[in-house]
Amino acid sequence: MELDASQECAGGVTAAEGFTAGGVYCGIRKTKKDIAIVRSSKPAVVAGVFTLNKVVAAPLLVDKIQLKKSNVCSAVVINSGNANACTGEHGLNDAWTMVQTAADALHLPREQVMVSSTGVIGQYLPMENIVNGINDLSTKLCKEGNKDAAEAIMTTDVFSKECAMRFSLDSSVITVGGMAKGSGMIAPNMATMLAFVTTDAAITPAALQSALRTANGHSFNRITVDGDMSTNDMLLVLANGLAQNDEIQEHTPAFDQFVNALEYVLIKLAKMIARDGEGATKFVEILVNGARTEDEAAQAARSVANSNLVKTALHGADANWGRILCAVGYSGIDFDPANVSIGFNDLPVLKPNYEIVLDEEKAKAVLSRENIIVQIDLHQGSAEARFWTCDLTKEYIHINASYRS
Amino acid sequence: MELDASQECAGGVTAAEGFTAGGVYCGIRKTKKDIAIVRSSKPAVVAGVFTLNKVVAAPLLVDKIQLKKSNVCSAVVINSGNANACTGEHGLNDAWTMVQTAADALHLPREQVMVSSTGVIGQYLPMENIVNGINDLSTKLCKEGNKDAAEAIMTTDVFSKECAMRFSLDSSVITVGGMAKGSGMIAPNMATMLAFVTTDAAITPAALQSALRTANGHSFNRITVDGDMSTNDMLLVLANGLAQNDEIQEHTPAFDQFVNALEYVLIKLAKMIARDGEGATKFVEILVNGARTEDEAAQAARSVANSNLVKTALHGADANWGRILCAVGYSGIDFDPANVSIGFNDLPVLKPNYEIVLDEEKAKAVLSRENIIVQIDLHQGSAEARFWTCDLTKEYIHINASYRS
Repeated sequence: MELDASQECAGGVTAAEGFTAGGVYCGIRKTKKDIAIVRSSKPAVVAGVFTLNKVVAAPLLVDKIQLKKSNVCSAVVINSGNANACTGEHGLNDAWTMVQTAADALHLPREQVMVSSTGVIGQYLPMENIVNGINDLSTKLCKEGNKDAAEAIMTTDVFSKECAMRFSLDSSVITVGGMAKGSGMIAPNMATMLAFVTTDAAITPAALQSALRTANGHSFNRITVDGDMSTNDMLLVLANGLAQNDEIQEHTPAFDQFVNALEYVLIKLAKMIARDGEGATKFVEILVNGARTEDEAAQAARSVANSNLVKTALHGADANWGRILCAVGYSGIDFDPANVSIGFNDLPVLKPNYEIVLDEEKAKAVLSRENIIVQIDLHQGSAEARFWTCDLTKEYIHINASYRS
Repeated sequence: MELDASQECAGGVTAAEGFTAGGVYCGIRKTKKDIAIVRSSKPAVVAGVFTLNKVVAAPLLVDKIQLKKSNVCSAVVINSGNANACTGEHGLNDAWTMVQTAADALHLPREQVMVSSTGVIGQYLPMENIVNGINDLSTKLCKEGNKDAAEAIMTTDVFSKECAMRFSLDSSVITVGGMAKGSGMIAPNMATMLAFVTTDAAITPAALQSALRTANGHSFNRITVDGDMSTNDMLLVLANGLAQNDEIQEHTPAFDQFVNALEYVLIKLAKMIARDGEGATKFVEILVNGARTEDEAAQAARSVANSNLVKTALHGADANWGRILCAVGYSGIDFDPANVSIGFNDLPVLKPNYEIVLDEEKAKAVLSRENIIVQIDLHQGSAEARFWTCDLTKEYIHINASYRS
């Protein structure tokens, strides 16, 4: 199954059958919307991936317990402006209160509600505002609430991030849609990155978790803004089965189709996060090919994508291919530098045996664009991987030197 | 043996008996001095450590061959402004020409000359200028040439970096002195960092290499500016024996004294590099204690020292301890975040069980200083490690967005 933009549809996290959402301002941030709820009319099979950071925020600890108690979920409540991280017992109680408040307001069993937070670390949530916000918002959830929800989960994001797509599976039509936030503290293996994806597909819990793991590996684990991995990252997928397809099992053609669709949505959301990197002016794809394995290609691409020196050079439209080769050099993979070729978009810059074919004027023009593809061919195999990032700018420093204030 | 600043002496790389040096402009850079030579009147035992980058510059390839051929060295020739990296066969020939030219001019066997380069990657050296420069400089080497040499190896460095110290070993007085350069592309495991250290100690080749490995692990491998590891890093130590002490052997008290002195000089030079980080306004020490092992302490400290978010917060004098704990969290070591305490200089900020004792006003005052110590106590053992870095500023972006031009 080839997927393309023609299969995209509107609606983000509420595009799939049976999902509603909303987002309002409740008083955590100064003025922007700061609390969102996503609701499924039917209890949905749920799968999640969470930060690998040893410092884990309270909502993630709660969700891991929820996932053990129940593999269905009917609502997710999310706040921005405060991460509820490094808040100890107090923070845990607050997260449970968010769950209980939403469960009461939406008339749901408590174990069917999950919770998520993003924002400043080490401060307690303003619980009175949040409880009022949840109660208020619970009466306003609707099919058109996707946009408000996507806005309410933003922190330093410049734009909201939504994507949905539709595909046919046998005689059913399945929709997969989602929203994400993330802009700084973005590194492979999840970052201060939240994503919520919904689908009306019928799928077994094991197949959903497996599909998520695969698709996540090719999307959110392939972006980096600043190499900082946060305490709050999570990605949840809810599948409520309302498309009434035959329940998808692992190791079937239907499963592969579902993974493709999920990956399509996740990659699209992940790229939006890289494009919206704090202070970024350019979207950068690092494409490593000619590698012996996909893992090695990804390892080399990650090293280049994380290099401050590469990212400042791209910011300055400086065709400094030496920094790129240098970053591959310390990535830890084994390769022969003399065999490497490098290009920007379709402009070759370095050919094997250090043959420099750089045309400074043309390179400057290519690197002045908003979308840059850095192509690195290792010429030692046929595997490839892509990583997405952005340039590093003075605005990144400006944003992060004063984030709390 | 306790070492302190009272044992420091003037003279940098020529402080030890029998060493001369010099630095001149030869036409690689626009106007600044760009070529240096360090000379020993007596062939000196030599030990070196080199970049771990897979992309290795031509001079390092040459020096590794020289080290195999001969374990004594009488001169090192160093240029700035051009790294002679990613230059293939052509670059290798150029590096050998530098060696041969210096050997001829100084009347030395070719295998006793080593070569080093730093600067832009992927461009050929202007060999006519360099050959003329070496011939010119060879007639000017002197005891007072240390300052010119230290200036001639600078690239984006704001100040030159020299240190020397003297200690008594039995009835001899031994001097260890050196110079270094480095400012950007600085990461643990060596960076675009050159350091040349000389001593008049008599020491066996094995003991010198062993001492260097130990001292380097506690100095240059404990600094980071931007996490980028370069193609050209090298650290050489020359020991010519003119102090006429009994030859130092490994596993002796004299060896321990020598290691201490070498470490003193290397740490001092390493700290100067961190302080001179590109665009830096602050010098930052990350001190992790209460760790189970020194390796774990260093691993946690490295993660904090490499975090763009921590370094921008310190730039903004923002006591964002959450980012610090977060960076320890993704360092890969095992620890309980609830047991951690954090402080800035002597001001406690976070105590165990997430007890926040942050006084924003006092913290702002402390973090506005030029010297900041970030103290992180893991409360799980008695090992500690220090890492040195600097803040991340808009000036870093400015410098690196346009380095080649």
